[in-house]
Amino acid sequence: MKKIITEVSARHLHLSQKDLEILFGKNYTLRKKADLSQTGHFAAQETVILLNKKKSLTARIIGPTRANTQVELSMTDCKFLDIKPVLKLSGDIKNSGSIILVGPKGKIRLNSGVIVAKRHLHLASLDAKKWQIKNNQKVSVQVKSERELVFKNIIVRVGEGQTRLHLDTDEANAAGLKNGDIVYLDI
Amino acid sequence: MKKIITEVSARHLHLSQKDLEILFGKNYTLRKKADLSQTGHFAAQETVILLNKKKSLTARIIGPTRANTQVELSMTDCKFLDIKPVLKLSGDIKNSGSIILVGPKGKIRLNSGVIVAKRHLHLASLDAKKWQIKNNQKVSVQVKSERELVFKNIIVRVGEGQTRLHLDTDEANAAGLKNGDIVYLDI
Repeated sequence: MKKIITEVSARHLHLSQKDLEILFGKNYTLRKKADLSQTGHFAAQETVILLNKKKSLTARIIGPTRANTQVELSMTDCKFLDIKPVLKLSGDIKNSGSIILVGPKGKIRLNSGVIVAKRHLHLASLDAKKWQIKNNQKVSVQVKSERELVFKNIIVRVGEGQTRLHLDTDEANAAGLKNGDIVYLDI
Repeated sequence: MKKIITEVSARHLHLSQKDLEILFGKNYTLRKKADLSQTGHFAAQETVILLNKKKSLTARIIGPTRANTQVELSMTDCKFLDIKPVLKLSGDIKNSGSIILVGPKGKIRLNSGVIVAKRHLHLASLDAKKWQIKNNQKVSVQVKSERELVFKNIIVRVGEGQTRLHLDTDEANAAGLKNGDIVYLDI
């Protein structure tokens, strides 16, 4: 069994440049707070308010900007905000949820783009080669914490970043895992 | 594989008669809102405010009163309230967390009694006999939702109530399960 490092994704959002400028002003550029394990990605200093009916939560922006705005929530967040949770792979925002984004300079009603992200394994291309695992393959991961379980049906994303299992906060809490904990790839 | 019905436990608390009377007044009796699947247990109409520092949440009381007051939270709740989560079997409150309980007639600083309940399988004694499973045995359960996983190391409690898998809200969210969903006992 191969050891894998877990990363726990708290609620966050990706913004298109157009939406960034509506929320933060013309020609606005995100300021980096910290690099993430996937090459080029970073947690920005900026946050946005997510608003539905009278409930709101704050979410950090992950940079750089991308083609489509996407908000990633846990099921717990969805229940709190009274939004129907739609489980999707990141990038697949068709028929996903809607919400209002509020920034210091403006707000946006997002008709689509709110998802609960499916857990996934970012696999460094060297590890993919060594372990003979292909992009989009499904794998299982064993968790040996005091809340022992096996996550099945995890999609693999082969790329240039580091090998990391990405879970949301509900999954990490349910499995008794925190950021940086080791899990075991079932191969 | 045996089909099992899931029950999702939201945050709740059990009170001793002494603590009930401090919070609700002398000789107070809980009013039943709904029966639960475990014989004699019921959701009460009464709720209590759980307070830590400046954060608070509301929790429903589960009756009848019992020997020791016990508050059952999810890890998500613990993080919100800034309480260290202590994973325990229900009933085992040694070295568990502390919190303030606020009722309409009084409040209590609970020095111990706050737990994150370990998931468990309530097994009707007839099913236990039929399936040859003993009290305190550990079992695994397969979840076939779109968030497919296997919960391992689930303790069995044989009793007179109905056969039900008890998960907390984090576990249900992580597994894509809601109250009443079917899971599969791995025997």
